[in-house]
Amino acid sequence: MEVISKEMQRLLATGSTLRAMFEEGKRMVKQYGAENVFDFSLGNPSVPTPAAMNESMINVINNTDSMMLHGYMSNAGYESSRQAVADDLNRRFGTHFAAKNVTMTVGAANALVIAIKILTNPGDEVIVFAPFFLEYRNYISNFGAKTIVVPPNPPTFMPDMDAFAAAITERTRAVIIDNPNNPSGVVYDVETIRKMAAIMEEKQKEYGTSIFLLSDEPYREIVYDGVEVPFLTKYYRNTLVCYSYSKAMSVPGERIGYLLMPDEVDESEQIIAASSIGIRVLGCVNAPSLQQLAIIGAMDHLCDVNEYDKNRKLLMEILDEAGFEYAKPQGTFYLFMKTPIEDDRAFVAKAKDDYQLLLSAGSAFDCPGWLRIAYCVPHDRIARSRSRFVALGHEFGLN
Amino acid sequence: MEVISKEMQRLLATGSTLRAMFEEGKRMVKQYGAENVFDFSLGNPSVPTPAAMNESMINVINNTDSMMLHGYMSNAGYESSRQAVADDLNRRFGTHFAAKNVTMTVGAANALVIAIKILTNPGDEVIVFAPFFLEYRNYISNFGAKTIVVPPNPPTFMPDMDAFAAAITERTRAVIIDNPNNPSGVVYDVETIRKMAAIMEEKQKEYGTSIFLLSDEPYREIVYDGVEVPFLTKYYRNTLVCYSYSKAMSVPGERIGYLLMPDEVDESEQIIAASSIGIRVLGCVNAPSLQQLAIIGAMDHLCDVNEYDKNRKLLMEILDEAGFEYAKPQGTFYLFMKTPIEDDRAFVAKAKDDYQLLLSAGSAFDCPGWLRIAYCVPHDRIARSRSRFVALGHEFGLN
Repeated sequence: MEVISKEMQRLLATGSTLRAMFEEGKRMVKQYGAENVFDFSLGNPSVPTPAAMNESMINVINNTDSMMLHGYMSNAGYESSRQAVADDLNRRFGTHFAAKNVTMTVGAANALVIAIKILTNPGDEVIVFAPFFLEYRNYISNFGAKTIVVPPNPPTFMPDMDAFAAAITERTRAVIIDNPNNPSGVVYDVETIRKMAAIMEEKQKEYGTSIFLLSDEPYREIVYDGVEVPFLTKYYRNTLVCYSYSKAMSVPGERIGYLLMPDEVDESEQIIAASSIGIRVLGCVNAPSLQQLAIIGAMDHLCDVNEYDKNRKLLMEILDEAGFEYAKPQGTFYLFMKTPIEDDRAFVAKAKDDYQLLLSAGSAFDCPGWLRIAYCVPHDRIARSRSRFVALGHEFGLN
Repeated sequence: MEVISKEMQRLLATGSTLRAMFEEGKRMVKQYGAENVFDFSLGNPSVPTPAAMNESMINVINNTDSMMLHGYMSNAGYESSRQAVADDLNRRFGTHFAAKNVTMTVGAANALVIAIKILTNPGDEVIVFAPFFLEYRNYISNFGAKTIVVPPNPPTFMPDMDAFAAAITERTRAVIIDNPNNPSGVVYDVETIRKMAAIMEEKQKEYGTSIFLLSDEPYREIVYDGVEVPFLTKYYRNTLVCYSYSKAMSVPGERIGYLLMPDEVDESEQIIAASSIGIRVLGCVNAPSLQQLAIIGAMDHLCDVNEYDKNRKLLMEILDEAGFEYAKPQGTFYLFMKTPIEDDRAFVAKAKDDYQLLLSAGSAFDCPGWLRIAYCVPHDRIARSRSRFVALGHEFGLN
């Protein structure tokens, strides 16, 4: 008889591909030397954690009673942390949140999973827009709901509104958007958000349902050229925000974020109460206590985005020289490039085998014919990759 | 149409009772003054975090590159942390674990939820022994499995072996034990464990299935009178250990623990791989990175259990004087007391209303007729509660 659950067997099948890639990377470093392997596949922040964040951690450890610092608090988190998050949002976006609207979570992913557990019954539907972070599928299937994919809309990657409207059914419980977007690097502007909101409002009326917008925004502060990222609670009433400090503070390993639940969403009191239960029954219990307190003193000291911007500009310059097409990145630390052949997996394999460029196939984000370049790497690695990208482009007649 | 999922509606109904208790506690503090309310309801460690643990955190922050310290690592955790856990277990229990047998988790609860996700399909069964931590039900139902309860066996609270054997069916995928036990405070001895193992071995053969023993052991090191807690991988092959540093290091808010998966369990390689996926798809991604590294330097410096032991002895003395019956606590920081009337909820309400003693009804652990006293409180609170327990006992003719 089978030991492993069916759902986990499905996940293992996918997971083995990832593990194989990881092993291949290690093998290449051995074969070519670390300096001759150009890994652009990982979304691990490369800008140092702000000194203020480390100082805040030490300050909290040195000046807080250990039972208060490391003990259990309310499952939703420390009141002081939740108030600090609310104040920060209110100051930046002119909103009116209170501590009670915030539940501290084990990163944005945990916030998403909690929201999905609150909102979906088995067989319900959650909409995502390709290209998207494939883990969404697994978050959604945890509790038996189904992922409905709106196909990609290159080269702008703004959602196709007709396709979006067509994807909504009476079983649609939530819509996930990730703005700025991983992997495309684009930012949905206000006009796009307004159109999406209008469609959801209309469908809510048509079906007599509540359709929640889950705004996954770990990259909110990582934007360039003065681009503005709309704050979604202002444009659509049934919005829940899933935030993480992982990227803006370069602390992805620490697992600190929050779920924001405005008063105006349907059944907000029940959702707020359910979020405390959700974090508990998933076994997380609460967000790590030290980090909950540390962010209070560090919220105003985010990472220096200029470092990513320098990488972005250099990478665009290189790809222009090499002759590749790409979506102009406005946020995140990813660039989404069109593959000169349809088979993105084959192209990625060639870049790896012949040029030691490690890139991520768009198929891994439900968007074949494209690939993702993560430029959260040392600037020098990008500079040294120039000749390889140019030669790769040349091989396909692009320069 | 309903906004909240059916599963979450069920959880909210239970949750509202807990919230009401919490609110009632706050109201009482206002009415009687904090010094006249005797809260014995919470399992929050009261012994300070060892200085070595706070020093280790600061040391790690000051001496580790921020990208290494706060960045993503393998989902299973830092190799150095996993190796340190394996070494520690091998030294203490004569086992032979390697780093690969350990996945660092967001506490023991997260380890349990991951194991349940790996092992159960909807409709499968997981056995628990009353009295038990009621959250087990919710961990189990996350993915559609069913909780099967073996009834309590007072006054020893050692599992009734016939009832256990009768509870196992061909759909039994796992058995959870919590040793030392919350809420009873008893420790299953080697003889008990051997009997349980023999029953499971036999049932595995009978049904041709794998039945996993999930050993939830956050209280492993909190034992008294030299009692030995058997290390279960030595007595039953298909054992997975779910551990947390929450209690032994007084860091429950930090959410650091591990899932131990021995090589000899069925399909161990698949289970090990699945644990990395499990922590990811639940949205936790990995255990908090700073704490993963901090425990390495602090593992040999656990809390001073003597402080709990002093509380335990004083509480037993007081209850003896008051005339109450109880299970002699050998571990944890809980004492399980028989209520002099059958209706434990009514008795707990009386203790609260007339004596301002906040206790937890046994019904909350699927064991009516008993109650839990959490003695992880200032020693002084126990001393000052003497007259109240004695008066309460007197009212029921016990002294």
